[in-house]
Amino acid sequence: MTVKFRSIKKEIRILGIDDGRFEFRNRLSKLVEVIGVVYRGGYWLDGVMRTEVEIDGMDATEKITAMIANSPHYNQLRVVALNGITLAGFNVVDIKKLFKKLRLPVIAVTREKPNLEEIRKALMSLPDYERRWKAIKNAGKMIEVCTRIGVKPIYMQIAGLLEVDAEKILCKTSTRSNIPEALRVAHIIASGLAQLKEKKSGDSL
Amino acid sequence: MTVKFRSIKKEIRILGIDDGRFEFRNRLSKLVEVIGVVYRGGYWLDGVMRTEVEIDGMDATEKITAMIANSPHYNQLRVVALNGITLAGFNVVDIKKLFKKLRLPVIAVTREKPNLEEIRKALMSLPDYERRWKAIKNAGKMIEVCTRIGVKPIYMQIAGLLEVDAEKILCKTSTRSNIPEALRVAHIIASGLAQLKEKKSGDSL
Repeated sequence: MTVKFRSIKKEIRILGIDDGRFEFRNRLSKLVEVIGVVYRGGYWLDGVMRTEVEIDGMDATEKITAMIANSPHYNQLRVVALNGITLAGFNVVDIKKLFKKLRLPVIAVTREKPNLEEIRKALMSLPDYERRWKAIKNAGKMIEVCTRIGVKPIYMQIAGLLEVDAEKILCKTSTRSNIPEALRVAHIIASGLAQLKEKKSGDSL
Repeated sequence: MTVKFRSIKKEIRILGIDDGRFEFRNRLSKLVEVIGVVYRGGYWLDGVMRTEVEIDGMDATEKITAMIANSPHYNQLRVVALNGITLAGFNVVDIKKLFKKLRLPVIAVTREKPNLEEIRKALMSLPDYERRWKAIKNAGKMIEVCTRIGVKPIYMQIAGLLEVDAEKILCKTSTRSNIPEALRVAHIIASGLAQLKEKKSGDSL
């Protein structure tokens, strides 16, 4: 099943999702905060949501699905943009499953082309290797996209929409950098909040 | 002392500060999350910071000062916009003191003109009445400003800059509504994060 877009509106509601950085050594919790940011196209922030996923855990797909389904913005959203297909280390988001559950097309974006062989090796030291690797393969092929003139191309993996529509959505919503504004801002918010947490736990040690 | 602006740049770095809502009945903590959002004018989100202040406490001025002074954005900032001069109930921000400590002009914005007599009465039931009332009086007169054509005027109180400059800053940065974009977005983020906290504490009860 694929969602077909008759036209990509300038103010298409897009949700960008990213996690905060975490320090392996200092961490007091196994959970990492994940932030979702709703934008109207590449221009206006409309809403914010959050959830938590386990470092190297298996709950990312389920947690993201619940976060979106429970949000008051769900009905407005037309597409979800992820910063890659892993959160909190190797907690893999199965983008096909995400699409199937929410009926919302998903675009996973990366700035660098990941080395799949290296990822596969890293996964082998974790439990549930088969399921993780399957979710990674499930994300499908890596497609190069030029979102803005004069900046580096990025790579996308998609679920639930046509390549040509995904490309148009990325181009229309990448107003400030080479990634959608919702994703750029989700990264800033998640990092900003994570930093304070680190400081706090530092204080209390 | 007053900071004089030679010109107000379209991308002037402005920090908008707001707190999350809180439920008096359900609250498990005496602290309320406060979010600061850095914008380039009315257009691009540049950073996020956060702190916590006590409900009806006396620490807002100090906490906000520390949050800004410790931020990597401090040197870039030209002005601070507050959603009114109270956070977390009646935790009053002394905008004159804030300006004095940071050398950053402050504009406190409200959509409705507050009833000072009602506020004074409410304050009388709290400890440190004199200090709170002094901080409120310290914020100076309420000035009506039309930030956008065809929308309701708002009210500002200012510290450390000229009325005419404050007015220009509000007009240039209120791109989406009648308040600066940094303030509109700080409100959305603080509310979005607070909602999840409420849900979580609800779950655990």
